[in-house]
Amino acid sequence: MFALHFDGSSARVKELAEPAPFPDSALVRVSVAGVCDTDLQLVKGYMGFRGVLGHEFVGTVADGPTELRGRRVVGEINFACGSCPVCDAGVQRHCPSRRVLGILDADGAFAEFVRIPVANLHSVPDTVPDELAVFVEPLAAAFEILEQVDVAPDQDCVVLGDGKLGLLVAQVLASAGAQVRAVGKHAAKLAMLERRGIATTMLSDWLPEPTSLVVEATGSPAGFACALAAVRPRGTLVLKTTLAESPAVDLSPLVINEIQVVGSRCGPFSPALRALENADVDVSPLISDRVALRDATRALELAAAPGALKILIDAA
Amino acid sequence: MFALHFDGSSARVKELAEPAPFPDSALVRVSVAGVCDTDLQLVKGYMGFRGVLGHEFVGTVADGPTELRGRRVVGEINFACGSCPVCDAGVQRHCPSRRVLGILDADGAFAEFVRIPVANLHSVPDTVPDELAVFVEPLAAAFEILEQVDVAPDQDCVVLGDGKLGLLVAQVLASAGAQVRAVGKHAAKLAMLERRGIATTMLSDWLPEPTSLVVEATGSPAGFACALAAVRPRGTLVLKTTLAESPAVDLSPLVINEIQVVGSRCGPFSPALRALENADVDVSPLISDRVALRDATRALELAAAPGALKILIDAA
Repeated sequence: MFALHFDGSSARVKELAEPAPFPDSALVRVSVAGVCDTDLQLVKGYMGFRGVLGHEFVGTVADGPTELRGRRVVGEINFACGSCPVCDAGVQRHCPSRRVLGILDADGAFAEFVRIPVANLHSVPDTVPDELAVFVEPLAAAFEILEQVDVAPDQDCVVLGDGKLGLLVAQVLASAGAQVRAVGKHAAKLAMLERRGIATTMLSDWLPEPTSLVVEATGSPAGFACALAAVRPRGTLVLKTTLAESPAVDLSPLVINEIQVVGSRCGPFSPALRALENADVDVSPLISDRVALRDATRALELAAAPGALKILIDAA
Repeated sequence: MFALHFDGSSARVKELAEPAPFPDSALVRVSVAGVCDTDLQLVKGYMGFRGVLGHEFVGTVADGPTELRGRRVVGEINFACGSCPVCDAGVQRHCPSRRVLGILDADGAFAEFVRIPVANLHSVPDTVPDELAVFVEPLAAAFEILEQVDVAPDQDCVVLGDGKLGLLVAQVLASAGAQVRAVGKHAAKLAMLERRGIATTMLSDWLPEPTSLVVEATGSPAGFACALAAVRPRGTLVLKTTLAESPAVDLSPLVINEIQVVGSRCGPFSPALRALENADVDVSPLISDRVALRDATRALELAAAPGALKILIDAA
């Protein structure tokens, strides 16, 4: 099969053997995959990953349990051991011996076929087309916030950052009933939210008011301090950005104002699938471009271009 | 009256007028006051404070409402406006226009007399002598953790730092039923906790295991990263240290492990008073020295000496 493989120095489309079976796994024929900023970090050396890239996908089960064959599926990316104390406690996404699809010790989905633990698969409703279903993984990361933080109806929220994740987070919080203001640097991206009735402000015009919930999704070293300055005393800052750098951070306002900072990563697939089915969020404006799997290196280039949102890879 | 006054460059015992009345306040004759590390920071320029230092005290009401006169009292240090939305929401300690005793726009308690809003006063039980009652303010800061974080019986907790606050926090968490391990640099200080049945480890011998609740009370720029490394996925880090510096911090583990960081400052006086009354915590071993108010500059010097714990100032 063809796949986008990273050998530690460059990412190239290569012909590889189909992924080898492992216990309780299914073979999925990938239809569409999505490029995430994490993929761009991986080819810069993040996590020391070697192998097939890609962790956002939708596809069809080609081999596996009878009841799953032919099903259209998406897959959670953390492959847990299922038997350690962390897994027993129900937090498989934090299993200390987990493999992570296309990120850590597991070949990914920029390929014709991918192997996924059966326990990680979720069926996709017929009404959700592939080009929307491929957003389930990043959308689940937005829903993770609702799993971690109580968001009250009409609660004042600021989402900092108008990249892919920021645009999803703003919609998820708004669909939960919060009063959301999205703050970003790109008028065209913020306009997508305005069309959904979500208030937006250009960062250059933004005068932070004390806010009870601020989500930092800027992907930038300056984002944390900027977000911290906007949280009201006893408020909550949800941190989504991971950085290779260690910026200088003044943590004193966090103590003085008794702010709670919640680190937030991967999330639950079920509410993300329901939100797509019910059109509670609109991901289609986030698609910047689509390329064929054979041109997957170009997909990485397009994703790295200024202003790019989601680049999809057609694998079928 | 005599008082320890800081003029922006040096702290000196001076003769000053008694503090002027303000609405709904009481005049308290100070018996004993305690030196806090914050006082040492204030004389280095922190907060730009000018005036009488000191915010930990116990005394007797000399003038005020009839029912309070002659009562032995301690006083909460945040003087709230009482009428803003933050006060209305019940978080007076975060009133944006608050004055703070001996820290911000309010003369403090290293003096023969101090003025305190009546609403801030708490009566001290007869069974709690002055030299213990003077610990109510820092002990309340330890109890603040129980107000912010659910601590389960037998929950695994690590307290980093064996300074005054760390020693109080370890005792408060232990008295709440947690399985506490205190980690510090001073065998003699850790021995105080060992005598209370609290497990301790010297920092040089410590091999962090994933812990559900870690309290950072080191007062050191390196403390945050050290604490973060000890928190298990989805665990909680309570941050007590405020620093003048902005250390370089790698926040990625916070996101990857979905850790919650809770900034924690001043706390509730009532449980602290009860804990002293019931001898749930033992603060007496924390007293390093006592000096008379006339020698209060020496109290600051003693408090700044390596290994010092609490220095008390006898004002009566």
